[in-house]
Amino acid sequence: MYDENVPMSEMEIFDEKLLQQRIDTKTKPLGSLGVLEKIAFQIGSAHCTSYPVLRNPIIIVFAGDHGIANEGVSAYPQEVTAQMVFNFLNGGAAINVFCKQNNIDLEIVDAGVNYDFDRKYEETEALTVTKIGHGTKSFLNDTAMTYQQLQSCFIESRNIMMRAVRQRRNIVGFGEMGIGNTSAATMLMSYIYDLPIEQCVGRGTGLNDAQFENKIKILNQAKQFHGPITDPYVILHTFGGFEMVQMCAAMLEAYNQNMIIMIDGFICSAVYLVAQAIEPRMKDNAIFCHLSDEHGHQNLLNFLGVEPILKLNMRLGEGSGCALAYPIIKNAISFLSDMASFESAGVSEAN
Amino acid sequence: MYDENVPMSEMEIFDEKLLQQRIDTKTKPLGSLGVLEKIAFQIGSAHCTSYPVLRNPIIIVFAGDHGIANEGVSAYPQEVTAQMVFNFLNGGAAINVFCKQNNIDLEIVDAGVNYDFDRKYEETEALTVTKIGHGTKSFLNDTAMTYQQLQSCFIESRNIMMRAVRQRRNIVGFGEMGIGNTSAATMLMSYIYDLPIEQCVGRGTGLNDAQFENKIKILNQAKQFHGPITDPYVILHTFGGFEMVQMCAAMLEAYNQNMIIMIDGFICSAVYLVAQAIEPRMKDNAIFCHLSDEHGHQNLLNFLGVEPILKLNMRLGEGSGCALAYPIIKNAISFLSDMASFESAGVSEAN
Repeated sequence: MYDENVPMSEMEIFDEKLLQQRIDTKTKPLGSLGVLEKIAFQIGSAHCTSYPVLRNPIIIVFAGDHGIANEGVSAYPQEVTAQMVFNFLNGGAAINVFCKQNNIDLEIVDAGVNYDFDRKYEETEALTVTKIGHGTKSFLNDTAMTYQQLQSCFIESRNIMMRAVRQRRNIVGFGEMGIGNTSAATMLMSYIYDLPIEQCVGRGTGLNDAQFENKIKILNQAKQFHGPITDPYVILHTFGGFEMVQMCAAMLEAYNQNMIIMIDGFICSAVYLVAQAIEPRMKDNAIFCHLSDEHGHQNLLNFLGVEPILKLNMRLGEGSGCALAYPIIKNAISFLSDMASFESAGVSEAN
Repeated sequence: MYDENVPMSEMEIFDEKLLQQRIDTKTKPLGSLGVLEKIAFQIGSAHCTSYPVLRNPIIIVFAGDHGIANEGVSAYPQEVTAQMVFNFLNGGAAINVFCKQNNIDLEIVDAGVNYDFDRKYEETEALTVTKIGHGTKSFLNDTAMTYQQLQSCFIESRNIMMRAVRQRRNIVGFGEMGIGNTSAATMLMSYIYDLPIEQCVGRGTGLNDAQFENKIKILNQAKQFHGPITDPYVILHTFGGFEMVQMCAAMLEAYNQNMIIMIDGFICSAVYLVAQAIEPRMKDNAIFCHLSDEHGHQNLLNFLGVEPILKLNMRLGEGSGCALAYPIIKNAISFLSDMASFESAGVSEAN
């Protein structure tokens, strides 16, 4: 990895074998740090160094409203999206608490909430406004957004990620807030994997049986209306929320910038599926942080063939899984940088 | 909970229902913080308050040698116990790195290592020496320690925990280092649960097939030699290492002081089994931090009916699982203290 502080003569010639050797000669039984060793290896490999460091972590929470929310697919009214953004701005949500606790920066993005926030929040940089519209249209019998709106999402996201680059960040997590977005995420998963709605859908923020049946019915109707789609961009603009499309674009840009990408629960993972359909190599940089309690997420991760770091039975979103997994990721990098080797500590190796 | 800073007139009358209500009215869907909500509830209940705080966390690593190590039950030579204690003292082991990273104090205790460390380590308080002997005797055809040595372990541990009380700690994790101690832990589990060795034993620091078969053979021989035992104190002095008995006594004292007790992997859990046999209410204060890759630990936790916070495929010991789970525990307490409620944030509740 290029670093202007290191003279060319001392530049590391990266070799995966040397990275693995560095992990294996730490004072611990071989492989005994389990998942932490895999994380250290993945980050070292992605950043082409046996001496990886994590710089200025941030979680970017994209918020947006969904037309589909008016079809009774959520336990909460649409107003909650804006109310929760206020809660983020006032520091009272779970993601505020977790980011503060774990020394992670937090950026809130209004990608398309059905409410206009006071400009003062932008001026103090508490809020980034990249609003494409006041919520999407219902995808029950229309596309959620126009193709032009999709393109605007990509342009806005690029600006957000360029700022992260200027701030010399090399690890980023994504979160979301949007009443109705488990429905949109279900559609993305169902289309990308060509799976029936029933294998992808869940109870979101807590639907009862009757509400849950209605959600399944509505999503099946939408699938029938739109018919088969395979192009990931078309899937995105047909079903995605503005917050989801901007997140997808941000993931792609984060990968281009070789950042480590922390993936949260069901919605972020569904967005990731689309991003990976566009850029399959993204998997090298993606760390799956948490298995959500949302039904469908386990299926999604099984199909991807990945194991998340945490299984805490959460189903909150907001990037909460990323914020809680980050200390583990940081510890993985710390053991690689700070632990003694058998040789340096004078510890005997196994018989 | 008594706090000298709060006048009697403002003392909280603790009610579990109010604690649950406080958890439920935070700005998140009901139950959506999963395991974190359970942790917050457990700690609040144990400390009899809806406003729990964690004070001055510490991990105490007990080290000791085992006579059984000379029967070829470990992949590493006995000298590694002392070498690893040096590594702890020099800050190069995994537990040093994780404690530093996660702001946890660390205390290293020589409970019975087969080596005399320089007094300078005691003088600088890097090391606490409560040495009962230079390792236990092999329990293959003798008791590991005398009953008097067992009593000495309890006295020494009490002093260690009294210091923790003076330091106003209310959460403590335990770790261990001792070549051969997965064998001793296997015996504790096998006796407490009356299970065959085969359901409790594992490959420790990494035995190959032949070494593993030998370990099983040796432990079955020991079981045959000693015959049935049910008294937990007799089980302890027959098979326990000095580090394990001191840890057991420390757990009991921590419970008496109403501290939250973080339980690490296989060895700490086996010690916990004995402590719980002595004091069943200890379960209220115990938090199981990590599922070890050591075969037998999953069985042990299943029998206890507990779910650990982390499953990171580690098998290192040293209290490493406690150190990595502590940030999650801290985040659980933070959400309870710092998140806004639906009412205070003006967020609508579910339909």
